[in-house]
Amino acid sequence: MREVAIIGVGIHKFGRFGDEKTGYEMGRDAVIDALKDAGIEWKLIQAGYSGSVVGRFGDAIVQDLGLTGIPVMNVSNACATSGSAVTLGYQAVAAGFYDVVLAFGYEKMPRGFIAIADPGASGMRLLWFGTIGLLVNPLYFAMKIRRHMEEYGTTEDQLVKVSVKSHKNGSLNPNAMYQKALTYEEIAESRMVCDPIRLYELCAPNEGGAAVVICSMDVARRYTANPVRIAASVFKTRLYGTAEVPHIYRSATIKAPTPVMEAAKEAYESAGIGPEDLDVAEVQDTHSGDEIMHCEEVGLCPPGEGGRLLDEGATEIGGRIPVNTGGGLISCGEALGASGLRQIHEIVLQLRGDAGPRQVKDAKVGLTQVYGAPGVSSVIILKR
Amino acid sequence: MREVAIIGVGIHKFGRFGDEKTGYEMGRDAVIDALKDAGIEWKLIQAGYSGSVVGRFGDAIVQDLGLTGIPVMNVSNACATSGSAVTLGYQAVAAGFYDVVLAFGYEKMPRGFIAIADPGASGMRLLWFGTIGLLVNPLYFAMKIRRHMEEYGTTEDQLVKVSVKSHKNGSLNPNAMYQKALTYEEIAESRMVCDPIRLYELCAPNEGGAAVVICSMDVARRYTANPVRIAASVFKTRLYGTAEVPHIYRSATIKAPTPVMEAAKEAYESAGIGPEDLDVAEVQDTHSGDEIMHCEEVGLCPPGEGGRLLDEGATEIGGRIPVNTGGGLISCGEALGASGLRQIHEIVLQLRGDAGPRQVKDAKVGLTQVYGAPGVSSVIILKR
Repeated sequence: MREVAIIGVGIHKFGRFGDEKTGYEMGRDAVIDALKDAGIEWKLIQAGYSGSVVGRFGDAIVQDLGLTGIPVMNVSNACATSGSAVTLGYQAVAAGFYDVVLAFGYEKMPRGFIAIADPGASGMRLLWFGTIGLLVNPLYFAMKIRRHMEEYGTTEDQLVKVSVKSHKNGSLNPNAMYQKALTYEEIAESRMVCDPIRLYELCAPNEGGAAVVICSMDVARRYTANPVRIAASVFKTRLYGTAEVPHIYRSATIKAPTPVMEAAKEAYESAGIGPEDLDVAEVQDTHSGDEIMHCEEVGLCPPGEGGRLLDEGATEIGGRIPVNTGGGLISCGEALGASGLRQIHEIVLQLRGDAGPRQVKDAKVGLTQVYGAPGVSSVIILKR
Repeated sequence: MREVAIIGVGIHKFGRFGDEKTGYEMGRDAVIDALKDAGIEWKLIQAGYSGSVVGRFGDAIVQDLGLTGIPVMNVSNACATSGSAVTLGYQAVAAGFYDVVLAFGYEKMPRGFIAIADPGASGMRLLWFGTIGLLVNPLYFAMKIRRHMEEYGTTEDQLVKVSVKSHKNGSLNPNAMYQKALTYEEIAESRMVCDPIRLYELCAPNEGGAAVVICSMDVARRYTANPVRIAASVFKTRLYGTAEVPHIYRSATIKAPTPVMEAAKEAYESAGIGPEDLDVAEVQDTHSGDEIMHCEEVGLCPPGEGGRLLDEGATEIGGRIPVNTGGGLISCGEALGASGLRQIHEIVLQLRGDAGPRQVKDAKVGLTQVYGAPGVSSVIILKR
């Protein structure tokens, strides 16, 4: 397989934009941004992988940018939608089917919490958690972090601190939905939404777009002196032992590996590195507890020590392993199909040294991780 | 790239099934059927590509068949959804990422004609044809065939005859929605829906599932003495010259190539054959005129001579190049995400000699073709 690089990243600000723009148009604008960043012409793009959960016609990109006839595949995998698009693009270039492709994602989420809507139609059958009414996401995520607190001693104080960090980082990110640092008190005193998760510890489903130009390393060197290599791009579904616990985490008592753990393991093997080699990471923080649990699952610390990792300041910009330097989902919100690509956008800026006031010093290796319902995960490792 | 084969095909009858089953469950049952046909265990499947336009969670397959953690990508490309799933699976195996994968599709279509619903949300912007109200499919397809009739002399009589053939073939297919041969009069006197298209010349959006097990030729030989080789699997979007005429055909006056023509051209090159080498073909017959036009576009006859090809009996079972031996969309209906895989199911049966009363004698090479809105096409060539 050939080496594969990212030579351009683009983003459409995450937020709420009313009737100004369709979701697709945000994706398109992110694509235009990525092409410009790469300095490459649209006509050289040989295939597209478009991610959206609500939208279905990312192939409209050819109508806006040029009817070149290229294949554009629309993909959808809940929160891990971007991971599917990037993995498919990465594989197609690695294998030599194409030299230059595009992966992009966009979304215009309905307002309100993400619900497991019409499980029959969607194919997401009601397992026990559905039957007892755990149908919107804070409910099951709350139970998961509550168990983590019980087993490992993670505290509400730590949940608040994750969010303080996210909002501080988000205040430095012009593409975040919330660009305002919040005090500890503002977060700790915000409304309790679903015990133990408070309002300012939750991510908002929202709107936005993000895109990357992916190409072979040979082509990349023609466009930039600083290509960012995709060292691994892994996508996993749920595993044995997790059938009735779809939102499993690495528990002290439930020993089954999660899709995140398996995806991370395979990604590290594929990249030939370990978590100790990472300089920066973006992990899925649907709520602040999720960041703590996912730091553990991708191996930034041993199981149960995610809270301590935070307390030590390791995950701060300037810490040992900065996490969610872009503000994470908590500050950016989650435009489903674009969210994983927003993480990649952030890591690419960091590896290039282009992250401005939130730059991690001399970052060389970064990771992005997404966990999505009902048990899918994408882990991508990038290197400069 | 390695040689790639299909070693198993499965299908869930197309039709209407009320609340009996979800769309996903029809896809799952088709997968079970395909695994059985291949004689392969689920645990050996290394990746899945799930196609559906309405559904989003084909990855639920791992919940029903075994939580092996394999990647399952959900794809969606209108009528060409199956073509995306098969192309991705084919490429992944050809490149050596996996040895054995699954492509499956399913759908539970809403009742009524397929409309360009909420173009803003979907990203399918309103071009001129939308603005003037051409929003449900028979409208623009009617204009297209009407022009073909004007330019090439295609007749209403020929439109009826396509449908007579489809229903005769469908009567021999236990998985078709309509399994009753209709007389010329029944079709010619059926209600005019959208001039010149009559009720029995139109396909019904419906429900169903279909699946294939795709693997490397090396693996295939361990499972069967008669693997069917995927000689080409090509996916295209619309091209320059077609921007304002999204449902273009190969017109005498509009010379721009259609996505179908481009996909067919690339597929023939890739397979190292020409249309004259085909023994059997399944083409997209959203209505009977479509079959005539698509026969031309994939090169079964020169432009404008699709009607004559039919009149000569060439497209009958027993003719020079039998077309839609399974009854086509007209008899089977169109369960969007599964429709292209249903075509492949038919061709694989034909190449194996397993098509029973509708068997094409000694068929060695077959083609499937889909055209989907708003200008996407999939062409797949299979060989025994």
